[in-house]
Amino acid sequence: MKQDIKKKVIKRLKIIEGQVRGLQKMVEEEKYCVDVITQSSAVRHSLGSVEDLMMENHLSTHVIEQMKKGQHKKATQEILSVYKLAKFNK
Amino acid sequence: MKQDIKKKVIKRLKIIEGQVRGLQKMVEEEKYCVDVITQSSAVRHSLGSVEDLMMENHLSTHVIEQMKKGQHKKATQEILSVYKLAKFNK
Amino acid sequence: MKQDIKKKVIKRLKIIEGQVRGLQKMVEEEKYCVDVITQSSAVRHSLGSVEDLMMENHLSTHVIEQMKKGQHKKATQEILSVYKLAKFNK
Amino acid sequence: MKQDIKKKVIKRLKIIEGQVRGLQKMVEEEKYCVDVITQSSAVRHSLGSVEDLMMENHLSTHVIEQMKKGQHKKATQEILSVYKLAKFNK
Repeated sequence: MKQDIKKKVIKRLKIIEGQVRGLQKMVEEEKYCVDVITQSSAVRHSLGSVEDLMMENHLSTHVIEQMKKGQHKKATQEILSVYKLAKFNK
Repeated sequence: MKQDIKKKVIKRLKIIEGQVRGLQKMVEEEKYCVDVITQSSAVRHSLGSVEDLMMENHLSTHVIEQMKKGQHKKATQEILSVYKLAKFNK
Repeated sequence: MKQDIKKKVIKRLKIIEGQVRGLQKMVEEEKYCVDVITQSSAVRHSLGSVEDLMMENHLSTHVIEQMKKGQHKKATQEILSVYKLAKFNK
Repeated sequence: MKQDIKKKVIKRLKIIEGQVRGLQKMVEEEKYCVDVITQSSAVRHSLGSVEDLMMENHLSTHVIEQMKKGQHKKATQEILSVYKLAKFNK
Protein backbone atom coordinates (compact mmCIF):
# COMPACT_ATOMS: atom_id res chain seq x y z
CA MET A 1 0.00 0.00 0.00
CA LYS A 2 1.21 3.52 -0.79
CA GLN A 3 2.38 4.91 2.54
CA ASP A 4 1.20 8.48 1.94
CA ILE A 5 -2.31 7.26 1.11
CA LYS A 6 -2.29 4.89 4.09
CA LYS A 7 -1.40 7.75 6.44
CA LYS A 8 -4.07 10.02 4.97
CA VAL A 9 -6.75 7.30 5.16
CA ILE A 10 -6.00 6.41 8.79
CA LYS A 11 -5.99 10.09 9.75
CA ARG A 12 -9.36 10.62 8.07
CA LEU A 13 -10.85 7.48 9.63
CA LYS A 14 -9.81 8.75 13.07
CA ILE A 15 -11.59 12.02 12.36
CA ILE A 16 -14.63 10.06 11.14
CA GLU A 17 -14.60 7.95 14.32
CA GLY A 18 -14.67 11.16 16.35
CA GLN A 19 -17.51 12.49 14.21
CA VAL A 20 -19.53 9.31 14.77
CA ARG A 21 -19.03 9.70 18.52
CA GLY A 22 -20.09 13.32 18.10
CA LEU A 23 -23.26 12.10 16.39
CA GLN A 24 -24.01 9.82 19.37
CA LYS A 25 -23.63 12.76 21.72
CA MET A 26 -25.91 14.91 19.55
CA VAL A 27 -28.60 12.21 19.64
CA GLU A 28 -28.20 11.59 23.38
CA GLU A 29 -28.62 15.33 24.00
CA GLU A 30 -31.57 15.34 21.59
CA LYS A 31 -30.11 17.99 19.29
CA TYR A 32 -32.25 19.19 16.41
CA CYS A 33 -32.86 16.35 13.90
CA VAL A 34 -31.95 18.46 10.89
CA ASP A 35 -28.53 19.19 12.41
CA VAL A 36 -27.96 15.49 13.14
CA ILE A 37 -28.91 14.52 9.57
CA THR A 38 -26.70 17.26 8.11
CA GLN A 39 -23.75 16.11 10.19
CA SER A 40 -24.35 12.45 9.30
CA SER A 41 -24.43 13.37 5.60
CA ALA A 42 -21.07 15.07 6.05
CA VAL A 43 -19.65 11.89 7.61
CA ARG A 44 -21.11 9.84 4.75
CA HIS A 45 -19.37 12.20 2.35
CA SER A 46 -16.07 11.82 4.21
CA LEU A 47 -16.34 8.03 4.02
CA GLY A 48 -16.87 8.48 0.29
CA SER A 49 -13.59 10.35 0.07
CA VAL A 50 -11.85 7.57 2.02
CA GLU A 51 -13.19 5.16 -0.61
CA ASP A 52 -11.80 7.45 -3.33
CA LEU A 53 -8.36 7.28 -1.75
CA MET A 54 -8.54 3.49 -1.38
CA MET A 55 -9.63 3.24 -5.01
CA GLU A 56 -6.70 5.44 -6.07
CA ASN A 57 -4.38 3.13 -4.16
CA HIS A 58 -6.03 0.03 -5.59
CA LEU A 59 -5.77 1.22 -9.17
CA SER A 60 -2.16 2.32 -8.93
CA THR A 61 -0.93 -0.84 -7.19
CA HIS A 62 -3.03 -4.02 -7.43
CA VAL A 63 -4.75 -3.30 -10.72
CA ILE A 64 -1.48 -2.52 -12.52
CA GLU A 65 0.01 -5.76 -11.15
CA GLN A 66 -3.08 -7.80 -12.05
CA MET A 67 -3.00 -6.44 -15.58
CA LYS A 68 0.69 -7.34 -15.90
CA LYS A 69 -0.08 -10.89 -14.77
CA GLY A 70 -2.95 -11.17 -17.25
CA GLN A 71 -5.63 -11.24 -14.54
CA HIS A 72 -7.84 -8.90 -16.55
CA LYS A 73 -11.09 -10.53 -15.57
CA LYS A 74 -10.43 -10.36 -11.84
CA ALA A 75 -9.30 -6.73 -12.09
CA THR A 76 -12.32 -5.74 -14.15
CA GLN A 77 -14.92 -7.49 -12.01
CA GLU A 78 -13.59 -6.06 -8.77
CA ILE A 79 -13.50 -2.49 -10.05
CA LEU A 80 -17.01 -2.93 -11.39
CA SER A 81 -18.32 -4.27 -8.10
CA VAL A 82 -17.07 -1.29 -6.09
CA TYR A 83 -18.24 1.06 -8.84
CA LYS A 84 -21.79 -0.24 -8.43
CA LEU A 85 -21.52 0.02 -4.65
CA ALA A 86 -20.50 3.67 -5.00
CA LYS A 87 -24.00 4.61 -6.11
CA PHE A 88 -25.78 1.66 -4.46
CA ASN A 89 -26.82 0.27 -7.85
CA LYS A 90 -26.94 -3.49 -7.36
CA MET B 1 -37.56 12.86 20.47
CA LYS B 2 -39.29 9.51 20.15
CA GLN B 3 -37.57 7.26 22.67
CA ASP B 4 -37.73 4.07 20.58
CA ILE B 5 -36.08 5.84 17.63
CA LYS B 6 -33.49 7.46 19.93
CA LYS B 7 -32.52 4.05 21.33
CA LYS B 8 -32.30 2.50 17.87
CA VAL B 9 -30.19 5.37 16.50
CA ILE B 10 -27.71 5.32 19.39
CA LYS B 11 -27.38 1.55 19.10
CA ARG B 12 -26.70 1.81 15.38
CA LEU B 13 -24.22 4.66 15.83
CA LYS B 14 -22.29 2.52 18.33
CA ILE B 15 -22.13 -0.28 15.77
CA ILE B 16 -21.00 2.23 13.14
CA GLU B 17 -18.30 3.55 15.49
CA GLY B 18 -17.05 -0.03 15.88
CA GLN B 19 -17.12 -0.49 12.12
CA VAL B 20 -15.07 2.69 11.59
CA ARG B 21 -12.51 1.39 14.07
CA GLY B 22 -12.59 -1.89 12.16
CA LEU B 23 -11.84 0.05 8.97
CA GLN B 24 -8.81 1.65 10.63
CA LYS B 25 -7.52 -1.78 11.62
CA MET B 26 -8.07 -3.09 8.08
CA VAL B 27 -6.04 -0.22 6.64
CA GLU B 28 -3.30 -0.51 9.27
CA GLU B 29 -2.98 -4.21 8.45
CA GLU B 30 -3.06 -3.33 4.74
CA LYS B 31 -6.05 -5.53 3.94
CA TYR B 32 -7.14 -5.78 0.32
CA CYS B 33 -8.39 -2.38 -0.96
CA VAL B 34 -11.55 -3.84 -2.47
CA ASP B 35 -12.54 -5.28 0.92
CA VAL B 36 -11.90 -1.95 2.64
CA ILE B 37 -13.99 -0.09 0.05
CA THR B 38 -16.80 -2.65 0.30
CA GLN B 39 -16.84 -2.34 4.09
CA SER B 40 -16.75 1.46 3.94
CA SER B 41 -19.71 1.43 1.52
CA ALA B 42 -21.61 -0.69 4.03
CA VAL B 43 -20.91 1.86 6.75
CA ARG B 44 -22.02 4.66 4.43
CA HIS B 45 -25.22 2.73 3.86
CA SER B 46 -25.74 2.29 7.62
CA LEU B 47 -25.30 6.03 8.15
CA GLY B 48 -27.95 6.52 5.48
CA SER B 49 -30.35 4.39 7.50
CA VAL B 50 -29.57 6.44 10.63
CA GLU B 51 -30.52 9.52 8.61
CA ASP B 52 -33.76 7.77 7.59
CA LEU B 53 -34.61 7.19 11.25
CA MET B 54 -33.78 10.77 12.19
CA MET B 55 -35.93 11.98 9.30
CA GLU B 56 -38.79 9.77 10.46
CA ASN B 57 -38.46 11.29 13.90
CA HIS B 58 -38.21 14.81 12.51
CA LEU B 59 -41.32 14.45 10.37
CA SER B 60 -43.47 12.93 13.09
CA THR B 61 -42.50 15.43 15.77
CA HIS B 62 -41.03 18.81 14.73
CA VAL B 63 -42.63 19.06 11.31
CA ILE B 64 -46.12 18.37 12.65
CA GLU B 65 -45.59 21.02 15.36
CA GLN B 66 -44.18 23.54 12.88
CA MET B 67 -47.14 23.01 10.59
CA LYS B 68 -49.53 23.55 13.50
CA LYS B 69 -47.78 26.80 14.36
CA GLY B 70 -47.95 27.97 10.76
CA GLN B 71 -44.17 27.73 10.24
CA HIS B 72 -44.67 26.17 6.82
CA LYS B 73 -41.72 27.89 5.20
CA LYS B 74 -39.23 26.79 7.86
CA ALA B 75 -40.54 23.21 7.76
CA THR B 76 -40.42 23.07 3.96
CA GLN B 77 -36.96 24.57 3.57
CA GLU B 78 -35.39 22.29 6.16
CA ILE B 79 -36.85 19.11 4.67
CA LEU B 80 -35.71 20.26 1.24
CA SER B 81 -32.16 20.94 2.44
CA VAL B 82 -31.70 17.45 3.89
CA TYR B 83 -33.41 15.94 0.84
CA LYS B 84 -30.77 17.53 -1.39
CA LEU B 85 -28.00 16.37 0.94
CA ALA B 86 -29.31 12.80 0.69
CA LYS B 87 -28.14 12.54 -2.90
CA PHE B 88 -25.43 15.21 -2.63
CA ASN B 89 -27.26 17.46 -5.11
CA LYS B 90 -26.40 21.00 -4.01
CA MET C 1 -49.20 22.58 -8.84
CA LYS C 2 -47.18 25.80 -8.66
CA GLN C 3 -47.08 27.10 -12.22
CA ASP C 4 -43.55 28.50 -12.07
CA ILE C 5 -42.21 25.15 -10.84
CA LYS C 6 -44.26 23.27 -13.45
CA LYS C 7 -42.77 25.39 -16.24
CA LYS C 8 -39.23 24.94 -14.92
CA VAL C 9 -39.64 21.17 -14.54
CA ILE C 10 -41.06 20.66 -18.04
CA LYS C 11 -38.28 22.81 -19.51
CA ARG C 12 -35.63 20.79 -17.70
CA LEU C 13 -37.21 17.47 -18.68
CA LYS C 14 -37.13 18.56 -22.33
CA ILE C 15 -33.43 19.32 -21.99
CA ILE C 16 -32.93 15.95 -20.29
CA GLU C 17 -34.80 14.20 -23.12
CA GLY C 18 -32.43 15.85 -25.59
CA GLN C 19 -29.46 14.78 -23.48
CA VAL C 20 -30.66 11.18 -23.43
CA ARG C 21 -30.93 11.27 -27.23
CA GLY C 22 -27.44 12.75 -27.26
CA LEU C 23 -26.25 9.81 -25.18
CA GLN C 24 -27.74 7.37 -27.73
CA LYS C 25 -25.88 9.17 -30.51
CA MET C 26 -22.63 9.05 -28.51
CA VAL C 27 -23.00 5.29 -28.04
CA GLU C 28 -24.00 4.68 -31.67
CA GLU C 29 -20.90 6.58 -32.80
CA GLU C 30 -18.85 4.66 -30.21
CA LYS C 31 -17.59 7.76 -28.43
CA TYR C 32 -15.11 7.28 -25.62
CA CYS C 33 -16.74 5.41 -22.69
CA VAL C 34 -15.47 7.86 -20.09
CA ASP C 35 -17.19 10.72 -21.93
CA VAL C 36 -20.45 8.76 -22.15
CA ILE C 37 -20.34 7.95 -18.43
CA THR C 38 -19.53 11.56 -17.53
CA GLN C 39 -22.44 12.81 -19.62
CA SER C 40 -24.81 10.20 -18.17
CA SER C 41 -23.79 11.25 -14.64
CA ALA C 42 -24.64 14.84 -15.56
CA VAL C 43 -28.10 13.72 -16.72
CA ARG C 44 -28.55 11.74 -13.51
CA HIS C 45 -27.66 14.89 -11.60
CA SER C 46 -30.19 16.92 -13.62
CA LEU C 47 -32.91 14.40 -12.84
CA GLY C 48 -31.99 14.80 -9.19
CA SER C 49 -32.60 18.53 -9.47
CA VAL C 50 -35.99 17.85 -11.11
CA GLU C 51 -36.81 15.70 -8.08
CA ASP C 52 -35.74 18.58 -5.82
CA LEU C 53 -38.17 20.91 -7.61
CA MET C 54 -41.00 18.37 -7.41
CA MET C 55 -40.26 17.90 -3.72
CA GLU C 56 -40.33 21.65 -3.19
CA ASN C 57 -43.72 21.75 -4.90
CA HIS C 58 -44.97 18.76 -2.93
CA LEU C 59 -43.98 20.22 0.41
CA SER C 60 -45.44 23.65 -0.23
CA THR C 61 -48.77 22.38 -1.57
CA HIS C 62 -49.87 18.82 -0.73
CA VAL C 63 -47.99 18.42 2.53
CA ILE C 64 -49.35 21.66 3.95
CA GLU C 65 -52.88 20.60 2.99
CA GLN C 66 -52.42 17.09 4.37
CA MET C 67 -51.18 18.52 7.66
CA LYS C 68 -54.20 20.83 7.86
CA LYS C 69 -56.52 17.87 7.30
CA GLY C 70 -54.76 15.84 10.00
CA GLN C 71 -53.31 13.35 7.51
CA HIS C 72 -49.95 13.40 9.30
CA LYS C 73 -49.20 9.74 8.80
CA LYS C 74 -49.76 9.82 5.05
CA ALA C 75 -47.66 12.99 4.69
CA THR C 76 -44.84 11.57 6.80
CA GLN C 77 -44.69 8.18 5.12
CA GLU C 78 -44.65 9.62 1.62
CA ILE C 79 -41.87 12.10 2.34
CA LEU C 80 -39.89 9.31 3.99
CA SER C 81 -40.31 6.98 1.02
CA VAL C 82 -38.95 9.51 -1.49
CA TYR C 83 -36.19 10.48 0.98
CA LYS C 84 -35.01 6.87 1.01
CA LEU C 85 -35.22 6.69 -2.78
CA ALA C 86 -33.04 9.78 -3.05
CA LYS C 87 -30.01 7.83 -1.84
CA PHE C 88 -31.26 4.39 -2.93
CA ASN C 89 -31.45 3.20 0.70
CA LYS C 90 -34.32 0.71 0.76
CA MET D 1 -16.91 -1.32 -28.34
CA LYS D 2 -18.36 -4.71 -27.41
CA GLN D 3 -21.36 -5.14 -29.69
CA ASP D 4 -23.57 -6.93 -27.15
CA ILE D 5 -23.05 -4.13 -24.61
CA LYS D 6 -23.59 -1.47 -27.29
CA LYS D 7 -26.94 -3.04 -28.25
CA LYS D 8 -28.03 -3.32 -24.61
CA VAL D 9 -27.05 0.28 -23.84
CA ILE D 10 -28.86 1.73 -26.86
CA LYS D 11 -31.95 -0.31 -26.04
CA ARG D 12 -31.94 0.93 -22.46
CA LEU D 13 -31.36 4.53 -23.49
CA LYS D 14 -34.39 4.33 -25.78
CA ILE D 15 -36.47 3.07 -22.86
CA ILE D 16 -35.06 5.89 -20.71
CA GLU D 17 -35.93 8.44 -23.40
CA GLY D 18 -39.51 7.15 -23.35
CA GLN D 19 -39.55 7.35 -19.56
CA VAL D 20 -38.37 10.96 -19.64
CA ARG D 21 -41.17 11.79 -22.07
CA GLY D 22 -43.52 9.95 -19.71
CA LEU D 23 -42.27 12.19 -16.90
CA GLN D 24 -43.08 15.28 -18.97
CA LYS D 25 -46.60 14.00 -19.53
CA MET D 26 -47.01 13.28 -15.83
CA VAL D 27 -45.99 16.83 -14.96
CA GLU D 28 -48.13 18.38 -17.69
CA GLU D 29 -51.13 16.45 -16.36
CA GLU D 30 -50.14 17.47 -12.82
CA LYS D 31 -49.89 13.91 -11.53
CA TYR D 32 -49.15 13.44 -7.85
CA CYS D 33 -45.64 14.76 -7.01
CA VAL D 34 -44.66 11.64 -5.07
CA ASP D 35 -45.38 9.50 -8.14
CA VAL D 36 -43.33 11.82 -10.37
CA ILE D 37 -40.39 11.74 -7.94
CA THR D 38 -40.60 7.95 -7.61
CA GLN D 39 -40.59 7.56 -11.39
CA SER D 40 -37.71 10.01 -11.80
CA SER D 41 -35.71 8.05 -9.20
CA ALA D 42 -36.30 4.92 -11.23
CA VAL D 43 -34.97 6.65 -14.35
CA ARG D 44 -31.96 7.88 -12.38
CA HIS D 45 -31.37 4.29 -11.32
CA SER D 46 -31.63 3.09 -14.93
CA LEU D 47 -29.07 5.67 -16.02
CA GLY D 48 -26.83 4.32 -13.29
CA SER D 49 -27.09 0.86 -14.80
CA VAL D 50 -26.23 2.28 -18.24
CA GLU D 51 -23.11 3.74 -16.62
CA ASP D 52 -22.33 0.31 -15.15
CA LEU D 53 -22.51 -1.24 -18.61
CA MET D 54 -20.32 1.49 -20.12
CA MET D 55 -17.83 1.02 -17.30
CA GLU D 56 -17.80 -2.74 -17.91
CA ASN D 57 -17.08 -2.04 -21.57
CA HIS D 58 -14.42 0.53 -20.72
CA LEU D 59 -12.58 -1.76 -18.34
CA SER D 60 -12.59 -4.76 -20.65
CA THR D 61 -11.45 -2.85 -23.74
CA HIS D 62 -9.71 0.52 -23.30
CA VAL D 63 -8.26 -0.05 -19.84
CA ILE D 64 -6.67 -3.37 -20.83
CA GLU D 65 -5.15 -1.71 -23.91
CA GLN D 66 -3.95 1.30 -21.95
CA MET D 67 -2.30 -0.97 -19.41
CA LYS D 68 -0.57 -2.92 -22.18
CA LYS D 69 0.75 0.34 -23.64
CA GLY D 70 2.02 1.46 -20.23
CA GLN D 71 -0.52 4.29 -19.96
CA HIS D 72 -1.17 3.44 -16.31
CA LYS D 73 -1.61 7.02 -15.17
CA LYS D 74 -4.23 7.87 -17.80
CA ALA D 75 -6.15 4.65 -17.09
CA THR D 76 -6.07 5.22 -13.34
CA GLN D 77 -7.08 8.87 -13.41
CA GLU D 78 -10.01 8.27 -15.74
CA ILE D 79 -11.43 5.39 -13.70
CA LEU D 80 -11.03 7.47 -10.57
CA SER D 81 -12.83 10.45 -12.08
CA VAL D 82 -15.93 8.44 -13.04
CA TYR D 83 -15.80 6.62 -9.69
CA LYS D 84 -16.09 9.96 -7.90
CA LEU D 85 -18.91 11.03 -10.23
CA ALA D 86 -20.81 7.84 -9.38
CA LYS D 87 -21.48 9.11 -5.87
CA PHE D 88 -21.16 12.81 -6.69
CA ASN D 89 -18.07 13.14 -4.46
CA LYS D 90 -15.96 15.81 -6.14
